[in-house]
Amino acid sequence: MTRVYNFSAGPAILPEEVMEQARDEMLDWQGTGMSVMEMSHRGKQFMSIAKQAEADFRELLAIPDNYQVLFLQGGATSQFAMVPINLLQGNQKADYVCTGHWSKKAIAEGRRFCEINLAASSEENGFQHIPPHQEWHLDPGAAYVHYTPNETIAGVEFHWIPDTGEVPLVADMSSTLLSRPVDVSRFGVIYAGAQKNIGCAGLTVVIVRDDLIGQPLKSAPTMFDYQIHRDHNSMYNTPPTYAWYIAGLVFGWLKRKGGLTAIAEVNRAKADTLYRFIDNSDFYYNPVERASRSRMNIPFILSEQGLDGVFLQQAEKAGLTNLKGHRSVGGMRASIYNAMPQEGVEALVEFMKEFERTRT
Amino acid sequence: MTRVYNFSAGPAILPEEVMEQARDEMLDWQGTGMSVMEMSHRGKQFMSIAKQAEADFRELLAIPDNYQVLFLQGGATSQFAMVPINLLQGNQKADYVCTGHWSKKAIAEGRRFCEINLAASSEENGFQHIPPHQEWHLDPGAAYVHYTPNETIAGVEFHWIPDTGEVPLVADMSSTLLSRPVDVSRFGVIYAGAQKNIGCAGLTVVIVRDDLIGQPLKSAPTMFDYQIHRDHNSMYNTPPTYAWYIAGLVFGWLKRKGGLTAIAEVNRAKADTLYRFIDNSDFYYNPVERASRSRMNIPFILSEQGLDGVFLQQAEKAGLTNLKGHRSVGGMRASIYNAMPQEGVEALVEFMKEFERTRT
Repeated sequence: MTRVYNFSAGPAILPEEVMEQARDEMLDWQGTGMSVMEMSHRGKQFMSIAKQAEADFRELLAIPDNYQVLFLQGGATSQFAMVPINLLQGNQKADYVCTGHWSKKAIAEGRRFCEINLAASSEENGFQHIPPHQEWHLDPGAAYVHYTPNETIAGVEFHWIPDTGEVPLVADMSSTLLSRPVDVSRFGVIYAGAQKNIGCAGLTVVIVRDDLIGQPLKSAPTMFDYQIHRDHNSMYNTPPTYAWYIAGLVFGWLKRKGGLTAIAEVNRAKADTLYRFIDNSDFYYNPVERASRSRMNIPFILSEQGLDGVFLQQAEKAGLTNLKGHRSVGGMRASIYNAMPQEGVEALVEFMKEFERTRT
Repeated sequence: MTRVYNFSAGPAILPEEVMEQARDEMLDWQGTGMSVMEMSHRGKQFMSIAKQAEADFRELLAIPDNYQVLFLQGGATSQFAMVPINLLQGNQKADYVCTGHWSKKAIAEGRRFCEINLAASSEENGFQHIPPHQEWHLDPGAAYVHYTPNETIAGVEFHWIPDTGEVPLVADMSSTLLSRPVDVSRFGVIYAGAQKNIGCAGLTVVIVRDDLIGQPLKSAPTMFDYQIHRDHNSMYNTPPTYAWYIAGLVFGWLKRKGGLTAIAEVNRAKADTLYRFIDNSDFYYNPVERASRSRMNIPFILSEQGLDGVFLQQAEKAGLTNLKGHRSVGGMRASIYNAMPQEGVEALVEFMKEFERTRT
């Protein structure tokens, strides 16, 4: 068996150790004679898996006690609605910052529930930088401020946390959570689909401050009420048990790797390796402002037109897969989440060098 | 490794062949060098898995072309809201039939969206029979009629399909879908959480007739609109890819077993084996009316009080697990979904015989 270096933006590469453990435990988890998939979510075995996963997640992010951690379904796309449903609390207004495709999706869904003030946007600039905080027009009467710390398509990332005073800050961290330490106490809500740095698709993790729970819009389905999930420890109905288990394995792997401070250094080194190579090349190009560049998703363009297909084909032959850029941007994109090792990035750079050499 | 006979009501036992295939493919699906978990949902590999799963599911149930099949998240509990959100279409009334715990949950959520006419109920009877159709009070002006063909807790099952004329019939088939052939053309909507006969928790399958799609309540989250999911082939956002893949493996296994006619015979034989033994015993007792008994979930009570703990302990030692009845009913419950082999039921009966012998 040959494993590839998979640069998919998500669902994405997972740690090989985690995959091996999942394989070895598939038919018999720790002598129970059952797969984790076959366990009642209310039985003592799965309860122990669920609790350990939450404890490890809390430890990795140093989550304060006044925050709940919810293990839900529905993806970040469901959170686009669940956030206004729970946080408006009688208010009619919310602030949103638009820095790319995913911000826009959050804004479009938010508009179904309230009036939205676009506090800042980099759309005119083609989403190639993060609007500096001094240019934001925040509304002090807003129910919350929503932003997207990392945008997977244009490849921009916040390397700072916005100060929103008393107004709760809400972040769609789907593509950056667990890639570096984060001061959770600065946020009202953090949410993330699992299929980047957390685990497999079908699980959504929500970190929500206690005081924001309990006043949902009455018109909303019960499943969109944070309180219901908090009161039932994320087991109001059957949770996505296997995805929760896989996330727990990933959390264990991250702890063994030294936690978020250690992985952040690895991620910085990986991104530096690729950006440095691109910036020193006349053949490859990344259009994003340097201070706004993502450490997770690195788009790049070939200077010569018409070569994308050959590049992708040869890359795949070399075991470097899913490098095609999003159709809205074109070119290439290398997503290098936690599970992508430094060797994967180096193999990509070597391939890019060789491709450039034979084409110029 | 010793596999147990797992009688859990759900998440539940899965076919051993399916677990073995999932194990063998965990790190490398068909030479791609990736786990299915690591695949982009929009890539050609996962698209082929998704399409094959839908094709096999349609074939197994002989689903007519004017029905959509949606692979969603959120469980049956989300459908409790999604059904009224999509089917009311300006109407304010719906009919519900109450035959147990899950009917009651559907009714409670339905009440948040419309006026509910309780067309029939067996609650006064302790949910020990299915109310005969001639006793139902259907409202010809209802937007739909909702019922629960199998109730996992009391262990009752419909062995007939209600005639509701022009009013669309909606069924929560979570615990019976794929256990026998069903005439889909009789229904407006059929939905099921996957964690019984379909696959693992985190996937919800919805079969919905075309003409019922497209007029959702405006106050609802976009994720609760059937049309959005139909228009995007269940990929409006990242679907629960691994759960979808497992479901596909189960569908393949079912086809190799001879499809729903064949599995229905196996299920009937398994249920007959256990009911016949219980009925012939003075030590064990099943309170459900014979014509309403479930073939999937068989509760039974020990005639002598105070022995439940010993029974469960010894059963577990004998490799017969998760036999504890729901706390609202007490006693024992054997859930014998498709993946439970006849040998598992026979092992249970042998154990019950021996337990009775040593205790009387």
